[in-house]
Amino acid sequence: MESVDVIVVGAGIAGLTTARTLLQKDPSLKILVLEGKDRVGGRTLTVNVQTANHTTDKFDMGGQWVGRTQKELLALLDELKIELYDQYETGRKLAQMGNEKIRSYTASLPIFAAGTFSLYEVFDFLCNVFKMNRMSNKINLLDAFSWEGAAAADEQSVASYARSVSYTRSARDALDISIRAIYGAEAKRMSLLYHLLYCKSGGSFMDLTEITGNGAQAFRIKGGSQQISLKMAEALGDRVRLRTAVKHIETSEGGPTRVTVANGDKLECKRLVLAIPPNQCGKLEFSPPLGYMKRRLYDNMTPGHLIKFVVTYQSSFWRAEGRSGEIISAGRTSVPGEVLAVVCSFDATTCNGSPAIVGFIHAELHDWTASERCNAVVKDLVRFLGTKALSEFIAYEEKNWNTEPFNGGCPVDYVTPGNMDAFMSIRDMHYGVHFAGTETAVVWMGYMSGAIESGKRAANEVLYALELRDKVDHKYLNGSQFSVEYHHPHPPSDHYTDSPSPWRRRIFFTTAVLFGIYAVSKKYDLSYTARVFRPVEKSVFKWWTGMEWPH
Amino acid sequence: MESVDVIVVGAGIAGLTTARTLLQKDPSLKILVLEGKDRVGGRTLTVNVQTANHTTDKFDMGGQWVGRTQKELLALLDELKIELYDQYETGRKLAQMGNEKIRSYTASLPIFAAGTFSLYEVFDFLCNVFKMNRMSNKINLLDAFSWEGAAAADEQSVASYARSVSYTRSARDALDISIRAIYGAEAKRMSLLYHLLYCKSGGSFMDLTEITGNGAQAFRIKGGSQQISLKMAEALGDRVRLRTAVKHIETSEGGPTRVTVANGDKLECKRLVLAIPPNQCGKLEFSPPLGYMKRRLYDNMTPGHLIKFVVTYQSSFWRAEGRSGEIISAGRTSVPGEVLAVVCSFDATTCNGSPAIVGFIHAELHDWTASERCNAVVKDLVRFLGTKALSEFIAYEEKNWNTEPFNGGCPVDYVTPGNMDAFMSIRDMHYGVHFAGTETAVVWMGYMSGAIESGKRAANEVLYALELRDKVDHKYLNGSQFSVEYHHPHPPSDHYTDSPSPWRRRIFFTTAVLFGIYAVSKKYDLSYTARVFRPVEKSVFKWWTGMEWPH
Repeated sequence: MESVDVIVVGAGIAGLTTARTLLQKDPSLKILVLEGKDRVGGRTLTVNVQTANHTTDKFDMGGQWVGRTQKELLALLDELKIELYDQYETGRKLAQMGNEKIRSYTASLPIFAAGTFSLYEVFDFLCNVFKMNRMSNKINLLDAFSWEGAAAADEQSVASYARSVSYTRSARDALDISIRAIYGAEAKRMSLLYHLLYCKSGGSFMDLTEITGNGAQAFRIKGGSQQISLKMAEALGDRVRLRTAVKHIETSEGGPTRVTVANGDKLECKRLVLAIPPNQCGKLEFSPPLGYMKRRLYDNMTPGHLIKFVVTYQSSFWRAEGRSGEIISAGRTSVPGEVLAVVCSFDATTCNGSPAIVGFIHAELHDWTASERCNAVVKDLVRFLGTKALSEFIAYEEKNWNTEPFNGGCPVDYVTPGNMDAFMSIRDMHYGVHFAGTETAVVWMGYMSGAIESGKRAANEVLYALELRDKVDHKYLNGSQFSVEYHHPHPPSDHYTDSPSPWRRRIFFTTAVLFGIYAVSKKYDLSYTARVFRPVEKSVFKWWTGMEWPH
Repeated sequence: MESVDVIVVGAGIAGLTTARTLLQKDPSLKILVLEGKDRVGGRTLTVNVQTANHTTDKFDMGGQWVGRTQKELLALLDELKIELYDQYETGRKLAQMGNEKIRSYTASLPIFAAGTFSLYEVFDFLCNVFKMNRMSNKINLLDAFSWEGAAAADEQSVASYARSVSYTRSARDALDISIRAIYGAEAKRMSLLYHLLYCKSGGSFMDLTEITGNGAQAFRIKGGSQQISLKMAEALGDRVRLRTAVKHIETSEGGPTRVTVANGDKLECKRLVLAIPPNQCGKLEFSPPLGYMKRRLYDNMTPGHLIKFVVTYQSSFWRAEGRSGEIISAGRTSVPGEVLAVVCSFDATTCNGSPAIVGFIHAELHDWTASERCNAVVKDLVRFLGTKALSEFIAYEEKNWNTEPFNGGCPVDYVTPGNMDAFMSIRDMHYGVHFAGTETAVVWMGYMSGAIESGKRAANEVLYALELRDKVDHKYLNGSQFSVEYHHPHPPSDHYTDSPSPWRRRIFFTTAVLFGIYAVSKKYDLSYTARVFRPVEKSVFKWWTGMEWPH
């Protein structure tokens, strides 16, 4: 049986960062990176698409944007000598939400577009965002349940929260679209507490959605984001093994960890790092089995259902027309059941000047064929950008991440309502197994920057566990069980506290007594009023209880 | 390659009923039943436990109760000559909810125990149950979204609904306990719409929880419920193959369906029936892959985390003390983080007179060892039933269904919020593959009776697909795609309808104008009142927006 010091499962950004960090710290370590797919990069993928002037250019079909506060990513890009350029955002943006009308605005987000949306709608947007920010600011990234409102927020979906605080359809649509664009998921399926934690992790809700300022969409990567993984993998050489899916993991306290790969081969290591999405962790067999919390977590973290498209054009005609290429759309019309294709789009004209639009497609179109989706996307772009979106069309490229093996979806796995207690165990080790991957990050979780942070944390955990303690960078143990500040986050305990205010009871009993007096007066026909009210009472009683009035 | 007419995957009640029904209709059919475990019975399991007088008796560690309206189950038990006896329910019941106090009552449910609980609590219970019944009565079992409130109910978890309508902790506890007892799950993780559909499917919420009347816990089975499967399997003889887990399914339109089992063998059939829990369907590989809705469904139906226990005693001492043995408990105390073991219990004294208590354990105790759980259960029983619960103790037997292979949990897989649109596809075929299992039933879904109904439906679907149409019993095609009344249920379309009432806007603008007048008067120091109110304004503004008042 082949035996090494460390096995890393998954050659995405997190896994490759783990291996790279370990080798930087101790070049004598024997390391293997096992990857199920036939490529590295995980949820980043750069492909060639036909562009103007009969040439091709590279476009990102996975993670692609870089923000100004994503320090880990910016540092790694610097080390790997990969350059950035600005995401284009000059000009008017387009939005369809609240009704079928397409509206254009210049503010960074529709919530500030007071001229375009009605005052009532803008007020509603702003209140929603303020409330969300107020809640997310209270969240401790390492222990979400230290906030007193956490248990109630975890019970709710983002959509049921939005329904309870919004007055306009536009505000609900705006939140729905942003959740679709951020997570590739529907607001009704996500724990509100998870969303608040995610916002806090990236700075704030605005930072997740904006291009300007600290927004996550500030820059793009020259030559595409898959380069990050390709360059790291190149340096690792034959330590990276493709087409080697792990099936079974046997681990123990203090002893070695053994993995069985798809062709039946067994490999042994001192420490194992799983740098794969949580939903994929749930598909592995563990011996001894995972604890209850981890198992429930992996059963209840489901991947976003993102379909990403790139359409290349003869020219950036929208720029000439004073538009930024940014579109957000609820994709609903007044026709029952109709869903239009585009969720959101951005200008994707490359640094080489190849004009293009990039965007996401509604998951409802998942079962359509690629050519059907191409038609639907171009038709929807025509709705927003005019007929040039058809006449200048060159090529359509899409990536349906749901059908990608060893990912299950993109961009991120999210937590369903009621499972945030289990999420608190996401970084916990399982005997000799460590967990990396962007979902396990503390800062910018779900983004490339978070993947790098998680990889560095896992690498430092491994160094700690291998007793190479002088090599450990304690800064990167944040959130790890080896951190000196670690205390296991407690799920909400739901114990009995002091009695609630007696006023509810008092009001109830006063009402009951008044009702009693009324009922007695009615029974003995003490007044004409009582007789007059009888039919009303009967119908109220029937509406309330579903039963006939007792005789 | 071995080739048969029909392969049934899963030798639980649903799978065996499918095979049995097919053979009854056409004895010439070549049928195979493949089962991953080394036993038949699925989520029913009868074991021997040591009892009084140094003997042993049979106890059910899985599904065990029979209700008066479970016609399919009653008919099958009659055919198999299996007898029933009443669930014991004479005497006072015990409940701990709302606070630490143990309260006893004689009504069938605490919601009617007006002497024991305060009037305020009982009123709250009753309102909750009435509201839930009113909603569930509106649900169409074959198309949950035909009810106008369905989309909003699907966005919510049962717990967030309960929090919004309950005034007392007791009422919330009562609902939490009933959800734990019915589904082995927490209310905060379940779609409210799924719960309402489940209630409707079994009659009403009361029917799922009661022993009396049409309650699901009316009878027990002499000799245990696993007999049902054992007797059916015996009649099927060597058509049932144990330890044969299916891994891969290759199917096509009109062509044969091929399955690959764990040891690599391939089998071919004309039609395949998957009679396994939805969460297990999600672990199989399909080629061509499942559609988006089915895949999302299987990703988001998670199993209940039930741990069931039986404790045998020297005597039924609780009966002598005038207690029925029925306990329901929130399991919470005023100590933060403390969780007591027992969720609910019933008298389990067998028809042979072996005294015992059966019940469920909180999923939070999942990672404890069996002996730790034994201690916790007995200690908790002592709290309710007195010291005899310890002094007369004979044996403890438990079944942790979470660690059971090929089940993933018990008693039933439930739907997480926002996924009921996907649930509507649960009975839909995938080319040559049919789906059975109690979750796919229309009536009494989640119960043994539903398993039988689903097996009969799948069998009739197969007969229909094999063009043996004169043998099809159309009554059992209810909910099937072959049913003449079938129309595909539509998910909520969320299209734009007429504008909402203008009153919200009017009130908003009136308030805004009044606020404007007030602000102007304040700016120009028009009154002393304005100056007096300045500190209040500042603190309200800061609380609301988190920002300082602009100067």
